[in-house]
Amino acid sequence: MAETGPSVFSEVELHTFCSDVFTMLGVPEEDALTAASVLVLSDLRGIDSHGVARLPAYVQMLQAGRINPRPNVRTIRETPSTATVDGDNGLGLVVGPQANRVAMEKAEQAGSGWVTVRNSNHYGIAGGYVMEAAERGLIGWSMTNTTRMVAPLFGAERMLGTNPIAVAFPAGEEPPVVIDMATTAAAFGKVEMARRKGEQIPPGWALGGDGLGTTDPVEMMASGALLPLGSTRELGGHKGYALAAMVDLLCGPLAGANWGPFTPAFTLQYADPTRSVGEGLGHLFGALQVEAFLDRDEFGRQVDDWIRTMRGTRPAPGTSGPLIPGDPERLAEADRRQNGIPLIGPVVQELEEVARQTGVSLR
Amino acid sequence: MAETGPSVFSEVELHTFCSDVFTMLGVPEEDALTAASVLVLSDLRGIDSHGVARLPAYVQMLQAGRINPRPNVRTIRETPSTATVDGDNGLGLVVGPQANRVAMEKAEQAGSGWVTVRNSNHYGIAGGYVMEAAERGLIGWSMTNTTRMVAPLFGAERMLGTNPIAVAFPAGEEPPVVIDMATTAAAFGKVEMARRKGEQIPPGWALGGDGLGTTDPVEMMASGALLPLGSTRELGGHKGYALAAMVDLLCGPLAGANWGPFTPAFTLQYADPTRSVGEGLGHLFGALQVEAFLDRDEFGRQVDDWIRTMRGTRPAPGTSGPLIPGDPERLAEADRRQNGIPLIGPVVQELEEVARQTGVSLR
Repeated sequence: MAETGPSVFSEVELHTFCSDVFTMLGVPEEDALTAASVLVLSDLRGIDSHGVARLPAYVQMLQAGRINPRPNVRTIRETPSTATVDGDNGLGLVVGPQANRVAMEKAEQAGSGWVTVRNSNHYGIAGGYVMEAAERGLIGWSMTNTTRMVAPLFGAERMLGTNPIAVAFPAGEEPPVVIDMATTAAAFGKVEMARRKGEQIPPGWALGGDGLGTTDPVEMMASGALLPLGSTRELGGHKGYALAAMVDLLCGPLAGANWGPFTPAFTLQYADPTRSVGEGLGHLFGALQVEAFLDRDEFGRQVDDWIRTMRGTRPAPGTSGPLIPGDPERLAEADRRQNGIPLIGPVVQELEEVARQTGVSLR
Repeated sequence: MAETGPSVFSEVELHTFCSDVFTMLGVPEEDALTAASVLVLSDLRGIDSHGVARLPAYVQMLQAGRINPRPNVRTIRETPSTATVDGDNGLGLVVGPQANRVAMEKAEQAGSGWVTVRNSNHYGIAGGYVMEAAERGLIGWSMTNTTRMVAPLFGAERMLGTNPIAVAFPAGEEPPVVIDMATTAAAFGKVEMARRKGEQIPPGWALGGDGLGTTDPVEMMASGALLPLGSTRELGGHKGYALAAMVDLLCGPLAGANWGPFTPAFTLQYADPTRSVGEGLGHLFGALQVEAFLDRDEFGRQVDDWIRTMRGTRPAPGTSGPLIPGDPERLAEADRRQNGIPLIGPVVQELEEVARQTGVSLR
């Protein structure tokens, strides 16, 4: 398929389009605005794979009745510093922000707040939740399990999701430190991109259907699996697998959600899991109140000093030196807020198809 | 130096030796027993680098007056689910277990417990603390920052420690899942072992003094640095760096301890940091009460199912299939409890030197 160059949209255009589409599909207006904000934030941060490019998949799931547009999200168990939230099969983009709020409120009251979520769906970028915590002066955590895509070390098939971990730390004068990472060697979006361009992928990213390493993105996507962070035993692949396991155990068994190979399919194209071991997809949100541990000002000064110290590291030859986690996304956000969000041709075409189906105009 | 074969010691022999040595150096008996237990557990679990092999370093530090043998470990700030503990420059092996207990008690009372520790020293294996939590039916976390040894991605010098993360999940009938991992591609002990054997190390483990990759363990140890998990940008080295940063920010700035390149030297051989930015070394202990989220029995059944499902993964060619995090250490422990703990010649010689200095007989 011939690809046209990117079209540039403003944040407002995309936000309005997404929220109008969600509303048209039965999502209450306030929830539709929230869900649109989560999606567009991803595009603003330069994480194109998790932004409006995913709207068509959410639309499909809503149209097929696989996601509940009007969930009754409720806390079904709680202690002073924890809660279990049932998302009532709502959009993860709606359930996630509500559950995250519970975690932040608990942290403000009891020092820390930890909230598991069951019966949810894909919740957008993990980093958005923890940025909200950092804006409130809290240290935030966010994790989710996801559709199976990753082989455990020494495994030959997809058993775990890309299971991201996000953590953010508020600073003083410096911008917050924002970590947002899949527990794989490389993001699935990079494999998709290589396929689109007809390029090979580096060794260490993926297995083929035979359980051996592959550099062919088509083979990975058809029958293979992503490798955990660390890639091989020698380079610590058991550690990436352990991190993915941690996320899965927290978001699955502890939350009462499905886990491992039984997590629900993200889109209608994927096969349904062979059995159900819980309700929907699961998340974990955590927050720590800084003042619970030491004075907020002192913490801010120390984090500023930490950031500046790391920036002052002697650079490796051929590099400009270490970045601070969150730097690339923050720079992308500054650029895109000013210059707009570029969308590649195929994404625009899919959004235009959504526009035709729903009667909401793209712009 | 010619090396003799390993000598085998019983758990009791090593525990008695270590606790007697600590007592001789002014550590109160109860603390000496605790510290010895932490060290010997590491040997039992097969993590030889963090066990009695480190006793000489602790002895040096105590003899030099660099560690306080009789610390007044106290909570200096707290909320229902958090605390900040000041270790009074005691042995990490003594401070760690006390602070971990505070975290577990908070979790039992408020659903979760999160405790930072400042003014401590190296605390042994991270995994021991979370195993204790799992035995109490809690999900446990443990992290510590450590002496600088690791370059951030795109850095050419040691700025962070190997900063381990440990997490354990209690199961039902199955043994607990125990994750205990440095946030580096490979453990420093493996580099030491390669040097001892005169072997090269694989690409992706380390940088030389010039900030470029090296396969020479001597160069890494003399002037280089370890690489974070993921090793290179292409394979996700920014993620390992981000994890090391997370541990450092929690155990340093949040705890009021030193951080990054300013963490205290582990032994007298290392140079002291150029400035002080906090007190001693820092740790973080966390615990979640399972019942706070769902019924303990249901959780146990799900974790058992999870473990068996992962064990049932189709194996990658040439492997026996995925392990569960903690498997290798559990098997080592079963073996060593029965057959004793083998110590290599150089370690025995160092312990004999400690025996001579302190007048405590090795056996």
